[in-house]
Amino acid sequence: MAIVLGPNQYGKAEVRVVAVDRSTPRHSLVDLNVSSALRGDFAAAHTAGDNAHVLTTDAQKNTVFAFARDGIGSPEEFGIRLADHFTGSQPWVTGARVSIESYGWDRIAVGGQPHDHAFRRPGGEVRTAVVTVAGSGTDATVHVLAGLTDLVVLKTTGSEFWGFPRDRYTTLPETTDRILATAVTARWRYTGTDVDWNGTYDAVRTTLLETFAGTHSLALQQTLFTMGEAALSRHPDVAEIRFSMPNKHHFLQDLSAFGLDNDLDGPGAVVYHADDRPYGLIEGTVLRDEVPAAPVAWEGTPGFC
Amino acid sequence: MAIVLGPNQYGKAEVRVVAVDRSTPRHSLVDLNVSSALRGDFAAAHTAGDNAHVLTTDAQKNTVFAFARDGIGSPEEFGIRLADHFTGSQPWVTGARVSIESYGWDRIAVGGQPHDHAFRRPGGEVRTAVVTVAGSGTDATVHVLAGLTDLVVLKTTGSEFWGFPRDRYTTLPETTDRILATAVTARWRYTGTDVDWNGTYDAVRTTLLETFAGTHSLALQQTLFTMGEAALSRHPDVAEIRFSMPNKHHFLQDLSAFGLDNDLDGPGAVVYHADDRPYGLIEGTVLRDEVPAAPVAWEGTPGFC
Amino acid sequence: MAIVLGPNQYGKAEVRVVAVDRSTPRHSLVDLNVSSALRGDFAAAHTAGDNAHVLTTDAQKNTVFAFARDGIGSPEEFGIRLADHFTGSQPWVTGARVSIESYGWDRIAVGGQPHDHAFRRPGGEVRTAVVTVAGSGTDATVHVLAGLTDLVVLKTTGSEFWGFPRDRYTTLPETTDRILATAVTARWRYTGTDVDWNGTYDAVRTTLLETFAGTHSLALQQTLFTMGEAALSRHPDVAEIRFSMPNKHHFLQDLSAFGLDNDLDGPGAVVYHADDRPYGLIEGTVLRDEVPAAPVAWEGTPGFC
Amino acid sequence: MAIVLGPNQYGKAEVRVVAVDRSTPRHSLVDLNVSSALRGDFAAAHTAGDNAHVLTTDAQKNTVFAFARDGIGSPEEFGIRLADHFTGSQPWVTGARVSIESYGWDRIAVGGQPHDHAFRRPGGEVRTAVVTVAGSGTDATVHVLAGLTDLVVLKTTGSEFWGFPRDRYTTLPETTDRILATAVTARWRYTGTDVDWNGTYDAVRTTLLETFAGTHSLALQQTLFTMGEAALSRHPDVAEIRFSMPNKHHFLQDLSAFGLDNDLDGPGAVVYHADDRPYGLIEGTVLRDEVPAAPVAWEGTPGFC
Repeated sequence: MAIVLGPNQYGKAEVRVVAVDRSTPRHSLVDLNVSSALRGDFAAAHTAGDNAHVLTTDAQKNTVFAFARDGIGSPEEFGIRLADHFTGSQPWVTGARVSIESYGWDRIAVGGQPHDHAFRRPGGEVRTAVVTVAGSGTDATVHVLAGLTDLVVLKTTGSEFWGFPRDRYTTLPETTDRILATAVTARWRYTGTDVDWNGTYDAVRTTLLETFAGTHSLALQQTLFTMGEAALSRHPDVAEIRFSMPNKHHFLQDLSAFGLDNDLDGPGAVVYHADDRPYGLIEGTVLRDEVPAAPVAWEGTPGFC
Repeated sequence: MAIVLGPNQYGKAEVRVVAVDRSTPRHSLVDLNVSSALRGDFAAAHTAGDNAHVLTTDAQKNTVFAFARDGIGSPEEFGIRLADHFTGSQPWVTGARVSIESYGWDRIAVGGQPHDHAFRRPGGEVRTAVVTVAGSGTDATVHVLAGLTDLVVLKTTGSEFWGFPRDRYTTLPETTDRILATAVTARWRYTGTDVDWNGTYDAVRTTLLETFAGTHSLALQQTLFTMGEAALSRHPDVAEIRFSMPNKHHFLQDLSAFGLDNDLDGPGAVVYHADDRPYGLIEGTVLRDEVPAAPVAWEGTPGFC
Repeated sequence: MAIVLGPNQYGKAEVRVVAVDRSTPRHSLVDLNVSSALRGDFAAAHTAGDNAHVLTTDAQKNTVFAFARDGIGSPEEFGIRLADHFTGSQPWVTGARVSIESYGWDRIAVGGQPHDHAFRRPGGEVRTAVVTVAGSGTDATVHVLAGLTDLVVLKTTGSEFWGFPRDRYTTLPETTDRILATAVTARWRYTGTDVDWNGTYDAVRTTLLETFAGTHSLALQQTLFTMGEAALSRHPDVAEIRFSMPNKHHFLQDLSAFGLDNDLDGPGAVVYHADDRPYGLIEGTVLRDEVPAAPVAWEGTPGFC
Repeated sequence: MAIVLGPNQYGKAEVRVVAVDRSTPRHSLVDLNVSSALRGDFAAAHTAGDNAHVLTTDAQKNTVFAFARDGIGSPEEFGIRLADHFTGSQPWVTGARVSIESYGWDRIAVGGQPHDHAFRRPGGEVRTAVVTVAGSGTDATVHVLAGLTDLVVLKTTGSEFWGFPRDRYTTLPETTDRILATAVTARWRYTGTDVDWNGTYDAVRTTLLETFAGTHSLALQQTLFTMGEAALSRHPDVAEIRFSMPNKHHFLQDLSAFGLDNDLDGPGAVVYHADDRPYGLIEGTVLRDEVPAAPVAWEGTPGFC
């Protein structure tokens, strides 16, 4: 029996780089949170404290800033540049993962006109990109996941939930009209790297939103699948998409103790209680059956693997 | 010498009530986080565990839900209804504070058309309202603060900082062109209660945004004051406004160690590092000098009192 | 009518300074989060962007690090040194507030012996200190608040709640045996500055814990007052103490739908649901009636003022 | 080409159950946050909104509370009971994952004696357990991961970092004496289920702490590996252990601009700046080479898979 080192990686997490294009008076900016991780032969660092193979995480951070000087383009493109660089930098580096959060900024409108250099960050929703390079040199394969987190959506009707089995512990009543709310985390894998990154991102996001809105839901699982199916059928560049969707419960409040009804169809506002915990959590994948799986593309990305 | 009870209050915090108007197929919703606190004669509860005066926090929560059944209107209006109710409910209640966070929801666009019952919550920025009733019955006075938190804004230029004194510990270089970024918390007190709550809120918010964008800044203090001055000069209903504005530092990254410049005016993106901590924190009040102060309106509201 | 500048302050927030005493092989460390704010004549910065009076927040940060070089001692002592320095530094600075969070570290035990230079940070609870200097030079007065936040405590019994009034919205049943849980935030003001800061802090904290545990509670208000009364009666240096204590509800779970009881006194575990929101929030002050109030000591400290 | 449903699971997340043993006057409590997820044939819910197979997440929550009535024992034991129940409950459920966070409570000491029913929650560090049952009935295999998160540790000396390669972007100086700090997340897989869950947990935790303290570190990777090696060599029940260890940077503060040194070995406190972001992130596995891998045990657990 031997105790040995297994899979490992290391890098610099959460480098907050902001790149401003000031080439014209109408500035633009890209605002990222970049995390890099290297894979390869780092055994000696672990077993002997020998750092000869350890490109410092500080250097990884410096690389992020230096590369941003040339402009960032899209998060996916920037991630590919960085991951390619890291895997090509030293022979013992045989893989890299670059994970990026991208924060959007809208121009502030002044007198109805978008301002040249003043912006508002809407907050909440975050665009994500994960680039994984496996191997190096001519053997390298590049995988790109795009995605978003915290896209919070809600329907005040058009959602039912009934027909479920009832065991000893089932007390939930059936409903044909409930609030459906979730905070969508979605990540989709591209079939290749010849992609209009920003354009496709925007298009997939629109597809997800429109499908959420347009689907009469019989289960959050059904909504999830329908969203994924729409994303894949409309966007041929997308090989698979994974969702994590908490069911953010909004319970109809019982007001009868105060002599009040709370009817969905009567006069007056219908009153719900937004509950924090516990919450349902629905996770699922929608994929093209003819595209080979790529587990390495998902390694290290939170989810159900 | 005696050890005695001093100022005290109690209530229910963070009641998450959502009211949906389903009276037409085009639904709308109001999504609030309501906290109430009662002031008055609760001495016996403290000194003897006698709860005869303690309207339960559970009842306060129930009241929030019950009142929402009639519709919420604006956060300010809902807060006034609740605070009036609580101060009128029992003779020993001589004051109430209702603090509300309001979360906005945008309609999801499907095929360019806003959907009837599907929404997206933008996240980030939050609208706030604080209603304080002091006294009860005919002696009651009502104070209303409107406001917002986490309005994150940034200018890529149009911000200078120089001319400051230099002591032994001053090492900061002067600059005539820096990124200025902050997360605005603003709270403004109305002169009365005959206000178009939603309309005025929107108008003040627009004033703040436009003024932030339009002000060539020599100091974040100057930006703050100019924003407040604009709010008061354009909105006669506003008696005073208080700001808390962190200076969210974006430092120009020094790339010289890698043989790179990072010139503001040369080709290429200008690269900044967004820093978390520490941060500058600028707080200030702008007010009309002829309006009487109302300290009770601000009691319990985070800030510099 | 004129629109004018009102109360204002500015400074550097959240300077994370760690000072290590390495003078013997048995190291010790002090780990602080320091925020400073200056008050005084900063009108020109606001109204004209003239920074001649604005000691930079960067210099304030540098001062924190430089002063730490001499050792920190207690948070209170360090806060006094800093606040005295800032108010004495420039004639237009007429007040300073230094707010400190202090994070404790325990020595890791190895083979039962506390290690010389390896530590574990317990997390959760935080010690706080707020020093306010009002005025400068010989007119300066110094106020010191010590305190703690997030001291999470719970009693599985010895807590009742009954005898409260019942209005239309009261549905809560009375109870003579409930879980009582809270996260104590307490801040106490010292009568002077000739105090054994660390020793008194520890003693007051012990008093609060022992009193929470030892009080048979009829109301969280009663527990609060009893804790405050004990703190003042045992610690003559303490002039007043303020508490903010959320009632972290633990509801007895109704298991009857599954054919199970959930009796407090029967066999088996008693099952509760720990609820997040909403929560009761009890706030109160206990004070010596002969000690003059010092509102300035509390300015800017979250609470109910 | 077809668009199909891929891997999926669903359940109830973050059920906050507290079980109190009141069978003697000396109460004890177990405080858990339980998340369950079911795997199996849920295709119809996704593709047709047919919920006939969907045991509601509400029922899963109810099951957690009902099972707690019999006592919880250890988190691992409770997770096994629940996962076994879910996989045995309905023929289409062919897997379950139960993930638990366990919050410790210490007895409050009163007059030096641990109190019977008053507790303090230390906060910070959390014990974790993940139970995965794959298959059902006689085919079921049970995997148990124990672990902890947010074990924050620091060494003021006994840490070096040098000998790393230098590329164009490497500017970090070498050091033979630095602060080493991290927040350990560790998860270890047991070889079976005949384990003294609480005793082994405590023992592994002690091993991790003692090894962190006792290792003279040449790299955080080396510390990680040494901790893992010690855990496996001392605890035969442990098959593998995975770590995620952020390098919480404490930078020696440069005070030279103020005419101050900051020597490690001179008089006075040594001053560091605790930095938030970016941070190094070191992740690695230590395992016994003869024990078969069990990827299913790790599915859905954040990490690098």
